[in-house]
Amino acid sequence: MSAKIRLYVEHPLGPGQSVPLTREQAHYLFGVMRLTVGAPVALFNGRDGEWLARVAEAGKRGGVLDCVEQTAPLRMPPDLWLLFAPIKKARTDFIVEKAAEMGAARIVPVQTDFTNAERVRRDRLQAHAVEAAEQCGGTFVPEVADLVRLDRLLADWPEDRRLMFCDEALAGASRALGAAGGKWAILIGPEGGFSDAERARLGALPFAHPVSLGPRILRADTAAVAAMTVWQQALGDWT
Amino acid sequence: MSAKIRLYVEHPLGPGQSVPLTREQAHYLFGVMRLTVGAPVALFNGRDGEWLARVAEAGKRGGVLDCVEQTAPLRMPPDLWLLFAPIKKARTDFIVEKAAEMGAARIVPVQTDFTNAERVRRDRLQAHAVEAAEQCGGTFVPEVADLVRLDRLLADWPEDRRLMFCDEALAGASRALGAAGGKWAILIGPEGGFSDAERARLGALPFAHPVSLGPRILRADTAAVAAMTVWQQALGDWT
Repeated sequence: MSAKIRLYVEHPLGPGQSVPLTREQAHYLFGVMRLTVGAPVALFNGRDGEWLARVAEAGKRGGVLDCVEQTAPLRMPPDLWLLFAPIKKARTDFIVEKAAEMGAARIVPVQTDFTNAERVRRDRLQAHAVEAAEQCGGTFVPEVADLVRLDRLLADWPEDRRLMFCDEALAGASRALGAAGGKWAILIGPEGGFSDAERARLGALPFAHPVSLGPRILRADTAAVAAMTVWQQALGDWT
Repeated sequence: MSAKIRLYVEHPLGPGQSVPLTREQAHYLFGVMRLTVGAPVALFNGRDGEWLARVAEAGKRGGVLDCVEQTAPLRMPPDLWLLFAPIKKARTDFIVEKAAEMGAARIVPVQTDFTNAERVRRDRLQAHAVEAAEQCGGTFVPEVADLVRLDRLLADWPEDRRLMFCDEALAGASRALGAAGGKWAILIGPEGGFSDAERARLGALPFAHPVSLGPRILRADTAAVAAMTVWQQALGDWT
Protein backbone atom coordinates (compact mmCIF):
# COMPACT_ATOMS: atom_id res chain seq x y z
CA MET A 1 0.00 0.00 0.00
CA SER A 2 1.96 2.96 -1.22
CA ALA A 3 1.18 6.57 -0.38
CA LYS A 4 -0.26 8.91 -2.96
CA ILE A 5 0.15 11.98 -0.79
CA ARG A 6 3.59 13.40 -0.05
CA LEU A 7 3.92 15.81 2.83
CA TYR A 8 6.83 17.90 4.06
CA VAL A 9 7.14 18.06 7.84
CA GLU A 10 9.74 19.63 10.12
CA HIS A 11 9.67 16.82 12.67
CA PRO A 12 12.40 14.13 12.75
CA LEU A 13 11.55 10.92 10.90
CA GLY A 14 12.76 7.49 11.94
CA PRO A 15 11.77 4.05 13.23
CA GLY A 16 8.93 4.36 15.72
CA GLN A 17 8.69 8.15 15.34
CA SER A 18 5.29 9.77 15.83
CA VAL A 19 4.84 12.98 13.89
CA PRO A 20 2.36 15.59 15.15
CA LEU A 21 0.51 17.56 12.50
CA THR A 22 -0.11 21.28 12.35
CA ARG A 23 -3.63 22.55 12.02
CA GLU A 24 -3.08 23.28 8.32
CA GLN A 25 -1.69 19.81 7.65
CA ALA A 26 -4.59 18.17 9.50
CA HIS A 27 -7.06 20.25 7.50
CA TYR A 28 -5.40 19.21 4.26
CA LEU A 29 -5.11 15.49 5.05
CA PHE A 30 -8.43 14.95 6.81
CA GLY A 31 -10.62 17.80 5.58
CA VAL A 32 -9.53 18.11 1.95
CA MET A 33 -8.10 14.68 1.14
CA ARG A 34 -10.47 12.79 3.49
CA LEU A 35 -7.82 10.44 4.88
CA THR A 36 -8.83 8.26 7.82
CA VAL A 37 -6.91 6.34 10.48
CA GLY A 38 -4.55 3.82 8.87
CA ALA A 39 -4.19 5.69 5.58
CA PRO A 40 -0.65 5.91 4.19
CA VAL A 41 1.20 9.20 3.72
CA ALA A 42 4.75 9.71 2.41
CA LEU A 43 6.73 12.07 4.65
CA PHE A 44 10.03 13.87 4.17
CA ASN A 45 11.74 16.60 6.14
CA GLY A 46 14.75 17.43 3.99
CA ARG A 47 17.09 15.46 6.27
CA ASP A 48 15.90 11.88 6.87
CA GLY A 49 14.85 10.72 3.39
CA GLU A 50 11.29 9.64 2.62
CA TRP A 51 9.22 7.62 5.07
CA LEU A 52 5.99 5.73 4.73
CA ALA A 53 3.76 6.76 7.60
CA ARG A 54 0.20 5.92 8.61
CA VAL A 55 -2.47 8.08 10.13
CA ALA A 56 -2.65 7.23 13.85
CA GLU A 57 -4.95 10.04 14.97
CA ALA A 58 -7.11 12.25 12.79
CA GLY A 59 -8.72 15.40 14.17
CA LYS A 60 -10.04 18.68 12.87
CA ARG A 61 -7.24 20.70 14.36
CA GLY A 62 -4.42 18.20 14.50
CA GLY A 63 -3.43 14.60 14.25
CA VAL A 64 -0.53 12.18 14.42
CA LEU A 65 1.25 10.11 11.78
CA ASP A 66 3.37 7.10 12.75
CA CYS A 67 6.49 6.33 10.70
CA VAL A 68 6.46 2.77 9.29
CA GLU A 69 9.56 2.45 7.13
CA GLN A 70 12.00 4.45 5.07
CA THR A 71 11.06 4.32 1.38
CA ALA A 72 13.88 6.47 -0.03
CA PRO A 73 17.17 7.79 1.30
CA LEU A 74 17.90 11.51 1.46
CA ARG A 75 19.00 12.55 -1.99
CA MET A 76 20.93 15.81 -1.93
CA PRO A 77 21.09 17.89 -5.10
CA PRO A 78 24.50 19.11 -6.30
CA ASP A 79 25.91 22.15 -4.45
CA LEU A 80 24.30 24.64 -6.82
CA TRP A 81 22.85 28.03 -5.90
CA LEU A 82 20.33 29.76 -8.12
CA LEU A 83 20.57 33.56 -7.99
CA PHE A 84 17.81 35.54 -9.65
CA ALA A 85 16.40 39.07 -9.67
CA PRO A 86 12.78 39.00 -8.47
CA ILE A 87 10.25 40.04 -11.08
CA LYS A 88 6.48 40.02 -11.09
CA LYS A 89 4.96 37.90 -8.35
CA ALA A 90 3.71 35.00 -10.43
CA ARG A 91 6.99 34.62 -12.32
CA THR A 92 9.05 34.91 -9.15
CA ASP A 93 6.97 32.07 -7.70
CA PHE A 94 7.62 30.06 -10.84
CA ILE A 95 11.37 30.60 -10.65
CA VAL A 96 11.45 29.27 -7.08
CA GLU A 97 9.29 26.29 -8.04
CA LYS A 98 11.47 25.53 -11.06
CA ALA A 99 14.70 25.89 -9.09
CA ALA A 100 13.46 23.30 -6.59
CA GLU A 101 12.36 20.92 -9.35
CA MET A 102 15.61 21.32 -11.26
CA GLY A 103 17.74 20.56 -8.21
CA ALA A 104 19.07 23.81 -6.78
CA ALA A 105 20.47 23.47 -3.27
CA ARG A 106 19.90 27.15 -2.40
CA ILE A 107 17.80 29.91 -3.94
CA VAL A 108 19.00 33.49 -3.56
CA PRO A 109 16.91 36.49 -4.68
CA VAL A 110 19.28 39.31 -5.65
CA GLN A 111 18.71 43.00 -6.14
CA THR A 112 20.41 44.28 -9.27
CA ASP A 113 20.67 47.80 -10.69
CA PHE A 114 17.55 47.16 -12.80
CA THR A 115 15.55 45.22 -10.17
CA ASN A 116 12.47 46.95 -8.88
CA ALA A 117 11.84 44.68 -5.89
CA GLU A 118 12.88 46.20 -2.58
CA ARG A 119 11.87 43.14 -0.62
CA VAL A 120 10.54 39.65 -1.16
CA ARG A 121 8.22 37.53 0.95
CA ARG A 122 10.82 34.94 1.89
CA ASP A 123 8.30 32.77 3.79
CA ARG A 124 5.98 32.64 0.78
CA LEU A 125 8.81 31.71 -1.57
CA GLN A 126 10.00 29.05 0.87
CA ALA A 127 6.49 27.58 0.86
CA HIS A 128 6.66 27.34 -2.94
CA ALA A 129 9.94 25.46 -2.70
CA VAL A 130 8.35 23.04 -0.20
CA GLU A 131 5.34 22.49 -2.45
CA ALA A 132 7.57 21.85 -5.46
CA ALA A 133 9.50 19.25 -3.48
CA GLU A 134 6.25 17.60 -2.35
CA GLN A 135 4.96 17.42 -5.92
CA CYS A 136 8.13 16.31 -7.59
CA GLY A 137 9.30 13.47 -5.42
CA GLY A 138 12.23 15.34 -3.90
CA THR A 139 13.53 14.46 -0.44
CA PHE A 140 15.40 17.76 -0.12
CA VAL A 141 14.01 21.30 0.05
CA PRO A 142 16.28 24.14 -1.07
CA GLU A 143 16.52 27.07 1.32
CA VAL A 144 15.30 30.42 0.03
CA ALA A 145 17.64 33.17 1.23
CA ASP A 146 16.78 36.78 2.01
CA LEU A 147 17.01 39.37 -0.75
CA VAL A 148 20.58 40.63 -1.06
CA ARG A 149 22.18 43.30 -3.22
CA LEU A 150 24.18 41.76 -6.08
CA ASP A 151 27.20 44.01 -5.49
CA ARG A 152 27.29 43.05 -1.81
CA LEU A 153 26.96 39.37 -2.67
CA LEU A 154 29.84 39.58 -5.14
CA ALA A 155 32.00 41.51 -2.65
CA ASP A 156 31.65 38.64 -0.14
CA TRP A 157 31.76 35.87 -2.72
CA PRO A 158 33.21 32.58 -1.41
CA GLU A 159 36.37 31.99 -3.40
CA ASP A 160 35.71 28.28 -3.93
CA ARG A 161 32.34 28.76 -5.66
CA ARG A 162 32.20 29.37 -9.40
CA LEU A 163 29.49 31.48 -11.02
CA MET A 164 27.74 30.82 -14.32
CA PHE A 165 25.90 33.87 -15.56
CA CYS A 166 23.53 34.18 -18.46
CA ASP A 167 23.22 37.39 -20.39
CA GLU A 168 21.63 38.00 -23.75
CA ALA A 169 24.24 40.62 -24.61
CA LEU A 170 26.92 37.97 -24.49
CA ALA A 171 26.67 36.40 -27.91
CA GLY A 172 29.93 34.64 -28.60
CA ALA A 173 31.50 35.26 -25.20
CA SER A 174 30.49 31.91 -23.78
CA ARG A 175 33.17 30.25 -21.75
CA ALA A 176 33.20 26.49 -21.38
CA LEU A 177 32.02 25.27 -18.00
CA GLY A 178 34.87 22.79 -17.86
CA ALA A 179 34.66 19.29 -16.49
CA ALA A 180 34.98 20.13 -12.82
CA GLY A 181 32.05 19.83 -10.47
CA GLY A 182 32.28 21.34 -7.02
CA LYS A 183 30.47 24.42 -5.81
CA TRP A 184 28.63 26.55 -8.31
CA ALA A 185 26.04 29.28 -8.61
CA ILE A 186 23.92 30.33 -11.58
CA LEU A 187 22.94 33.99 -11.91
CA ILE A 188 19.88 34.83 -14.02
CA GLY A 189 19.73 38.42 -15.17
CA PRO A 190 16.80 40.73 -14.46
CA GLU A 191 14.10 41.52 -17.02
CA GLY A 192 15.89 44.67 -18.18
CA GLY A 193 19.24 42.91 -18.34
CA PHE A 194 22.32 43.78 -16.31
CA SER A 195 23.56 47.37 -16.15
CA ASP A 196 26.81 48.19 -17.93
CA ALA A 197 28.57 48.43 -14.58
CA GLU A 198 27.28 45.01 -13.51
CA ARG A 199 28.20 43.47 -16.83
CA ALA A 200 31.74 44.85 -16.64
CA ARG A 201 32.12 43.66 -13.07
CA LEU A 202 30.75 40.17 -13.80
CA GLY A 203 32.92 39.87 -16.89
CA ALA A 204 36.06 40.63 -14.89
CA LEU A 205 35.44 38.13 -12.09
CA PRO A 206 37.93 35.26 -12.23
CA PHE A 207 35.33 32.75 -11.00
CA ALA A 208 32.60 33.80 -13.46
CA HIS A 209 31.64 31.88 -16.60
CA PRO A 210 29.34 33.67 -19.07
CA VAL A 211 27.05 31.27 -20.91
CA SER A 212 24.78 32.02 -23.84
CA LEU A 213 21.23 30.65 -23.91
CA GLY A 214 20.73 30.90 -27.64
CA PRO A 215 19.67 33.60 -30.10
CA ARG A 216 16.23 34.40 -28.66
CA ILE A 217 15.64 36.57 -25.62
CA LEU A 218 14.27 34.40 -22.80
CA ARG A 219 12.07 35.54 -19.98
CA ALA A 220 13.75 35.16 -16.60
CA ASP A 221 11.75 32.08 -15.60
CA THR A 222 12.50 30.37 -18.91
CA ALA A 223 16.16 31.31 -18.59
CA ALA A 224 16.31 29.81 -15.10
CA VAL A 225 15.16 26.39 -16.32
CA ALA A 226 17.34 26.52 -19.44
CA ALA A 227 20.45 27.54 -17.50
CA MET A 228 19.95 24.84 -14.88
CA THR A 229 19.49 22.29 -17.68
CA VAL A 230 22.79 23.35 -19.25
CA TRP A 231 24.54 23.10 -15.89
CA GLN A 232 22.95 19.83 -14.75
CA GLN A 233 23.83 18.18 -18.04
CA ALA A 234 27.43 19.36 -17.97
CA LEU A 235 28.31 19.22 -14.29
CA GLY A 236 25.35 18.09 -12.22
CA ASP A 237 23.46 14.92 -11.46
CA TRP A 238 21.82 14.34 -14.84
CA THR A 239 24.64 12.19 -16.17
CA MET B 1 14.73 56.50 -32.76
CA SER B 2 14.15 52.85 -32.06
CA ALA B 3 10.80 51.30 -31.24
CA LYS B 4 10.05 50.07 -27.73
CA ILE B 5 6.82 48.42 -28.76
CA ARG B 6 6.83 45.26 -30.89
CA LEU B 7 3.61 44.28 -32.58
CA TYR B 8 2.65 41.22 -34.57
CA VAL B 9 0.45 41.96 -37.61
CA GLU B 10 -0.89 39.75 -40.36
CA HIS B 11 -0.41 42.33 -43.11
CA PRO B 12 2.56 42.17 -45.52
CA LEU B 13 5.53 44.34 -44.53
CA GLY B 14 7.85 46.01 -47.03
CA PRO B 15 9.10 49.31 -48.44
CA GLY B 16 6.25 51.81 -48.65
CA GLN B 17 3.74 49.42 -47.11
CA SER B 18 0.90 50.90 -45.07
CA VAL B 19 -0.42 48.58 -42.38
CA PRO B 20 -4.02 49.01 -41.20
CA LEU B 21 -4.64 48.29 -37.52
CA THR B 22 -7.43 46.27 -35.98
CA ARG B 23 -9.59 47.84 -33.34
CA GLU B 24 -7.75 45.94 -30.61
CA GLN B 25 -4.34 47.01 -31.90
CA ALA B 26 -5.47 50.65 -32.12
CA HIS B 27 -6.80 50.46 -28.58
CA TYR B 28 -3.50 49.04 -27.34
CA LEU B 29 -1.23 51.49 -29.19
CA PHE B 30 -3.24 54.68 -28.79
CA GLY B 31 -5.46 54.03 -25.77
CA VAL B 32 -3.13 52.03 -23.51
CA MET B 33 0.35 53.01 -24.71
CA ARG B 34 -0.68 56.57 -25.71
CA LEU B 35 1.28 56.65 -28.97
CA THR B 36 0.69 59.59 -31.27
CA VAL B 37 1.32 60.23 -34.98
CA GLY B 38 4.99 59.76 -35.84
CA ALA B 39 5.74 57.35 -32.97
CA PRO B 40 7.87 54.31 -33.86
CA VAL B 41 6.59 50.73 -33.61
CA ALA B 42 8.47 47.52 -34.50
CA LEU B 43 6.34 45.23 -36.67
CA PHE B 44 6.71 41.60 -37.67
CA ASN B 45 4.37 39.18 -39.35
CA GLY B 46 6.28 35.92 -39.22
CA ARG B 47 7.31 36.19 -42.88
CA ASP B 48 9.01 39.51 -43.67
CA GLY B 49 11.40 40.03 -40.75
CA GLU B 50 11.11 43.01 -38.44
CA TRP B 51 10.28 46.49 -39.70
CA LEU B 52 10.44 49.90 -38.14
CA ALA B 53 7.12 51.61 -38.77
CA ARG B 54 5.64 54.93 -37.73
CA VAL B 55 2.15 55.87 -36.75
CA ALA B 56 0.52 57.60 -39.74
CA GLU B 57 -3.06 57.72 -38.47
CA ALA B 58 -4.26 57.20 -34.92
CA GLY B 59 -7.93 56.68 -34.14
CA LYS B 60 -10.05 55.13 -31.44
CA ARG B 61 -11.17 52.27 -33.62
CA GLY B 62 -8.32 51.95 -36.06
CA GLY B 63 -5.21 53.50 -37.48
CA VAL B 64 -2.40 53.07 -39.96
CA LEU B 65 1.31 52.39 -39.55
CA ASP B 66 3.76 53.11 -42.38
CA CYS B 67 6.77 50.84 -42.83
CA VAL B 68 10.07 52.76 -42.75
CA GLU B 69 12.86 50.19 -43.00
CA GLN B 70 13.64 46.57 -42.23
CA THR B 71 15.47 46.27 -38.92
CA ALA B 72 15.95 42.49 -38.83
CA PRO B 73 15.62 39.69 -41.35
CA LEU B 74 13.22 36.80 -40.83
CA ARG B 75 14.93 34.37 -38.53
CA MET B 76 13.39 30.92 -38.74
CA PRO B 77 13.83 28.55 -35.80
CA PRO B 78 15.06 25.01 -36.49
CA ASP B 79 12.43 22.60 -37.85
CA LEU B 80 11.37 21.43 -34.40
CA TRP B 81 7.87 20.54 -33.28
CA LEU B 82 6.88 20.54 -29.63
CA LEU B 83 4.23 17.95 -28.78
CA PHE B 84 2.66 18.14 -25.34
CA ALA B 85 -0.38 16.84 -23.49
CA PRO B 86 -2.52 19.79 -22.34
CA ILE B 87 -2.79 20.15 -18.58
CA LYS B 88 -4.30 22.81 -16.39
CA LYS B 89 -5.03 26.05 -18.22
CA ALA B 90 -2.27 28.21 -16.75
CA ARG B 91 0.42 25.60 -17.32
CA THR B 92 -0.76 24.88 -20.85
CA ASP B 93 -0.45 28.61 -21.57
CA PHE B 94 3.05 28.54 -20.14
CA ILE B 95 4.09 25.60 -22.29
CA VAL B 96 3.00 27.43 -25.43
CA GLU B 97 4.77 30.61 -24.33
CA LYS B 98 7.95 28.69 -23.49
CA ALA B 99 7.87 26.76 -26.77
CA ALA B 100 7.74 30.02 -28.71
CA GLU B 101 10.58 31.54 -26.66
CA MET B 102 12.73 28.44 -26.96
CA GLY B 103 12.37 28.30 -30.73
CA ALA B 104 9.80 25.67 -31.65
CA ALA B 105 8.58 25.91 -35.23
CA ARG B 106 5.26 24.19 -34.51
CA ILE B 107 3.34 23.44 -31.32
CA VAL B 108 1.08 20.39 -31.26
CA PRO B 109 -1.27 19.59 -28.34
CA VAL B 110 -1.70 15.82 -28.15
CA GLN B 111 -4.26 13.69 -26.39
CA THR B 112 -2.65 10.75 -24.61
CA ASP B 113 -4.20 7.89 -22.68
CA PHE B 114 -3.82 9.88 -19.45
CA THR B 115 -4.79 13.31 -20.85
CA ASN B 116 -8.03 14.72 -19.55
CA ALA B 117 -8.41 17.50 -22.11
CA GLU B 118 -10.96 16.74 -24.81
CA ARG B 119 -10.34 20.00 -26.61
CA VAL B 120 -8.13 23.06 -26.45
CA ARG B 121 -8.81 26.67 -27.31
CA ARG B 122 -6.46 26.79 -30.28
CA ASP B 123 -7.06 30.51 -30.90
CA ARG B 124 -6.17 31.37 -27.31
CA LEU B 125 -3.00 29.30 -27.40
CA GLN B 126 -2.04 30.89 -30.73
CA ALA B 127 -2.45 34.32 -29.13
CA HIS B 128 -0.01 33.24 -26.39
CA ALA B 129 2.53 32.23 -29.02
CA VAL B 130 2.13 35.63 -30.71
CA GLU B 131 2.57 37.46 -27.41
CA ALA B 132 5.68 35.45 -26.57
CA ALA B 133 7.18 36.33 -29.96
CA GLU B 134 6.34 40.01 -29.43
CA GLN B 135 8.01 40.02 -26.02
CA CYS B 136 11.05 38.02 -26.89
CA GLY B 137 12.27 39.66 -30.06
CA GLY B 138 11.28 36.81 -32.35
CA THR B 139 10.43 37.46 -36.00
CA PHE B 140 8.68 34.09 -36.37
CA VAL B 141 5.52 32.82 -34.67
CA PRO B 142 5.11 29.07 -34.30
CA GLU B 143 1.77 27.69 -35.42
CA VAL B 144 -0.35 26.02 -32.75
CA ALA B 145 -2.03 22.94 -34.23
CA ASP B 146 -5.37 21.44 -33.28
CA LEU B 147 -5.51 18.79 -30.56
CA VAL B 148 -4.75 15.37 -32.03
CA ARG B 149 -4.73 11.89 -30.53
CA LEU B 150 -1.18 10.64 -29.96
CA ASP B 151 -1.87 7.23 -31.50
CA ARG B 152 -3.28 8.85 -34.62
CA LEU B 153 -0.32 11.22 -34.85
CA LEU B 154 2.13 8.33 -34.57
CA ALA B 155 0.22 6.29 -37.17
CA ASP B 156 0.64 9.12 -39.69
CA TRP B 157 4.14 10.08 -38.60
CA PRO B 158 6.31 11.57 -41.38
CA GLU B 159 9.17 9.16 -41.86
CA ASP B 160 11.81 11.87 -42.14
CA ARG B 161 11.09 13.44 -38.73
CA ARG B 162 12.76 12.05 -35.63
CA LEU B 163 11.11 12.13 -32.21
CA MET B 164 12.76 12.83 -28.88
CA PHE B 165 10.57 11.80 -25.99
CA CYS B 166 11.05 12.44 -22.31
CA ASP B 167 9.79 10.03 -19.74
CA GLU B 168 10.66 9.76 -16.07
CA ALA B 169 10.38 5.96 -16.20
CA LEU B 170 13.28 5.83 -18.59
CA ALA B 171 16.23 5.96 -16.24
CA GLY B 172 19.21 4.65 -18.14
CA ALA B 173 17.44 4.13 -21.45
CA SER B 174 18.58 7.45 -22.90
CA ARG B 175 19.68 7.23 -26.48
CA ALA B 176 22.13 9.74 -27.87
CA LEU B 177 20.55 12.34 -30.12
CA GLY B 178 23.39 11.96 -32.59
CA ALA B 179 24.98 14.74 -34.57
CA ALA B 180 22.38 15.02 -37.29
CA GLY B 181 20.07 17.99 -37.47
CA GLY B 182 17.09 17.90 -39.80
CA LYS B 183 13.47 17.51 -38.80
CA TRP B 184 12.67 16.71 -35.20
CA ALA B 185 9.86 16.69 -32.70
CA ILE B 186 9.95 16.65 -28.89
CA LEU B 187 7.16 14.87 -27.03
CA ILE B 188 6.54 15.88 -23.41
CA GLY B 189 4.60 13.34 -21.40
CA PRO B 190 1.36 14.12 -19.60
CA GLU B 191 1.20 14.77 -15.83
CA GLY B 192 0.39 11.14 -15.08
CA GLY B 193 3.10 9.84 -17.42
CA PHE B 194 2.57 7.70 -20.49
CA SER B 195 0.46 4.55 -20.28
CA ASP B 196 2.22 1.20 -20.57
CA ALA B 197 0.83 0.79 -24.07
CA GLU B 198 2.10 4.20 -25.13
CA ARG B 199 5.49 3.60 -23.59
CA ALA B 200 5.84 0.27 -25.38
CA ARG B 201 4.79 1.81 -28.65
CA LEU B 202 7.10 4.81 -28.31
CA GLY B 203 9.98 2.59 -27.29
CA ALA B 204 9.58 0.45 -30.41
CA LEU B 205 9.47 3.32 -32.92
CA PRO B 206 12.60 3.36 -35.09
CA PHE B 207 12.59 7.18 -35.23
CA ALA B 208 12.16 7.73 -31.47
CA HIS B 209 14.93 8.74 -29.06
CA PRO B 210 14.15 8.47 -25.34
CA VAL B 211 15.98 11.12 -23.32
CA SER B 212 16.22 11.40 -19.55
CA LEU B 213 15.77 14.77 -17.85
CA GLY B 214 17.57 13.89 -14.65
CA PRO B 215 16.63 12.18 -11.39
CA ARG B 216 13.82 14.49 -10.26
CA ILE B 217 10.29 14.39 -11.62
CA LEU B 218 9.64 17.57 -13.60
CA ARG B 219 6.29 19.21 -14.15
CA ALA B 220 5.29 19.25 -17.81
CA ASP B 221 6.06 22.95 -18.31
CA THR B 222 9.49 22.56 -16.71
CA ALA B 223 10.16 19.46 -18.80
CA ALA B 224 9.26 21.34 -21.99
CA VAL B 225 11.90 24.01 -21.37
CA ALA B 226 14.50 21.49 -20.21
CA ALA B 227 13.92 19.19 -23.19
CA MET B 228 14.12 22.05 -25.67
CA THR B 229 17.35 23.22 -24.02
CA VAL B 230 18.86 19.75 -24.42
CA TRP B 231 17.81 19.65 -28.07
CA GLN B 232 18.82 23.22 -28.96
CA GLN B 233 22.25 22.70 -27.44
CA ALA B 234 22.85 19.41 -29.22
CA LEU B 235 21.18 19.94 -32.58
CA GLY B 236 19.57 23.37 -32.78
CA ASP B 237 20.60 26.97 -33.19
CA TRP B 238 22.30 27.51 -29.83
CA THR B 239 25.73 26.49 -31.03
